[in-house]
Amino acid sequence: MTIKLAITPGEPAGVGPDLMITLAQHQWQAMIVVFADAELMHSRASALGLPLTLLPYEASCQDIQPAGSLYIVDIPLRTRVVPGQLNQDNSQYVIDTLYQACQQNLDGEFDALVTGPVHKGIINQAGIPFSGHTEFFAQQSNTPDVVMMLATTGLRVTLVTTHIPVTAVSAAITESRLQKVIRIIDHDLKTKFAIAQPHIFVCGLNPHAGEDGHIGREEIDTIIPALESLRQEGFKLTGPLPADTIFNPKYLQQADTVLAMYHDQGLPVLKYKGFGQAVNITLGLPFIRTSVDHGTALDLAATGKADVGSFDIAIKEAISLAKSKQ
Amino acid sequence: MTIKLAITPGEPAGVGPDLMITLAQHQWQAMIVVFADAELMHSRASALGLPLTLLPYEASCQDIQPAGSLYIVDIPLRTRVVPGQLNQDNSQYVIDTLYQACQQNLDGEFDALVTGPVHKGIINQAGIPFSGHTEFFAQQSNTPDVVMMLATTGLRVTLVTTHIPVTAVSAAITESRLQKVIRIIDHDLKTKFAIAQPHIFVCGLNPHAGEDGHIGREEIDTIIPALESLRQEGFKLTGPLPADTIFNPKYLQQADTVLAMYHDQGLPVLKYKGFGQAVNITLGLPFIRTSVDHGTALDLAATGKADVGSFDIAIKEAISLAKSKQ
Repeated sequence: MTIKLAITPGEPAGVGPDLMITLAQHQWQAMIVVFADAELMHSRASALGLPLTLLPYEASCQDIQPAGSLYIVDIPLRTRVVPGQLNQDNSQYVIDTLYQACQQNLDGEFDALVTGPVHKGIINQAGIPFSGHTEFFAQQSNTPDVVMMLATTGLRVTLVTTHIPVTAVSAAITESRLQKVIRIIDHDLKTKFAIAQPHIFVCGLNPHAGEDGHIGREEIDTIIPALESLRQEGFKLTGPLPADTIFNPKYLQQADTVLAMYHDQGLPVLKYKGFGQAVNITLGLPFIRTSVDHGTALDLAATGKADVGSFDIAIKEAISLAKSKQ
Repeated sequence: MTIKLAITPGEPAGVGPDLMITLAQHQWQAMIVVFADAELMHSRASALGLPLTLLPYEASCQDIQPAGSLYIVDIPLRTRVVPGQLNQDNSQYVIDTLYQACQQNLDGEFDALVTGPVHKGIINQAGIPFSGHTEFFAQQSNTPDVVMMLATTGLRVTLVTTHIPVTAVSAAITESRLQKVIRIIDHDLKTKFAIAQPHIFVCGLNPHAGEDGHIGREEIDTIIPALESLRQEGFKLTGPLPADTIFNPKYLQQADTVLAMYHDQGLPVLKYKGFGQAVNITLGLPFIRTSVDHGTALDLAATGKADVGSFDIAIKEAISLAKSKQ
């Protein structure tokens, strides 16, 4: 059966539309349906000097688009876009595209959702509470707990906490949260990645994983008990290990994922290792969702200089996960 | 003039003594003086099956030792050592070696101090407050502020805070602390590394550097004002940038150092990039001090399997810094 991908190019002033237009020049082995303003896409294609045919999408469509074209679910901008200039009047437009694409994935009309970059700051400035795609889709799908994974060749990093201030991290790491997160990771690695018995390597929270309680007690009070209890149920877990030694090649060879306690503990290594070649995958949602690993790169919008690497890999990973589910 | 290095092998049950005995087989272009128990060194050399001649060190010594030998300042163990088994009865011994080596560097008798791994946990268990070599030498030398740097080929990471719990990080990052740290880094990059105008790249504290205040306010309230004020004095600073994009190769080409706000924000990338080939350098001290970047590796003590890479580089870096100071 034809694989159908829903794609949100994201922030209209950023490089998301550019990247999708560039990638549309390729002949994909899947239907690519973008949720965006049609005029925006045409005008950005002109700016880039690339051909673009937009095919109106309907649920009954089954034919893969030819190179140089994209299916579109036309969602109107709220105001005109100047490439590179954020405008809070279009924040609701961005949310509209995410909402619509999410709903049609929840309805089972698509095999996966792939998201381009959005700018959380401008969405919040418009008075819309928004802490990230991942949290938004969780809410829309009534999923109580999701897990953010970033993956590149040879390394998958998963996170216990994501876009919260450093001061809020310790309180957010409870035994209950850890157990939920590890259950979701184990489940999705089995069902979506076809790994028979996932081996999860877990970071401590504090430097040197707390060094036996001398640099913080969260490891002793929370992390170690949570891991022990899961091990007794048969989960394959190593840790907590210090974040500055867990990325040792000898561990990475064994690890199906490294679970970091917070954003900047795990993602700098992942992005350094896979720069421009990393994909964001949301675990725990009722549908497959991948995303670029970069921001809106406003200074590169409409220049043709943006690197398609991560968006390309996000689409390929979505197709690969969708196939293994079929 | 002959370069004289003071070296503390550190925890006697760990791999520090092994590594020094292995490295002693090499013909160095500097005097290598270890601060350790002579019997321990002989017995570990026997276990490793390596020849070792210990030459009693005196201040008047000027001849470089031949391969297979080391100068020694004999500091007695408090109790017998079983390789691989920590014993808090020897914690004071470890402190004695650090104290003695530090004093003789402060006296100007040596060109640099190189330290092997210690185990902070066992020192604390013995009731001795100790949060790390760096802090210890700062106190011994009445240095109010020091900065920890880890370096490998192509990347130097410096830290605003080091071995404190994650919950304590935000409060420790004040404008005053940031300014002191950056002044020390700039000064030492100029004087010890011979970099004419150091360019320092600075991380934010929170994920995405706080994203305009939506994920924490420390960037707006503290970090940005501190950097602005230093820029007006002529310091060359870029940031605050998100920790998961600052290690982009295009930034690293320009950066003489990346300043991370805390331990696990900066060191995982450094250790991943330079695994087994990283050196710890303390900035701000009145003497040159380098160190291995790894722990005591208790399971490898007396096995001959420990990797000398980091200790080797720590010694070479100390010699290099000592030469550029001459």
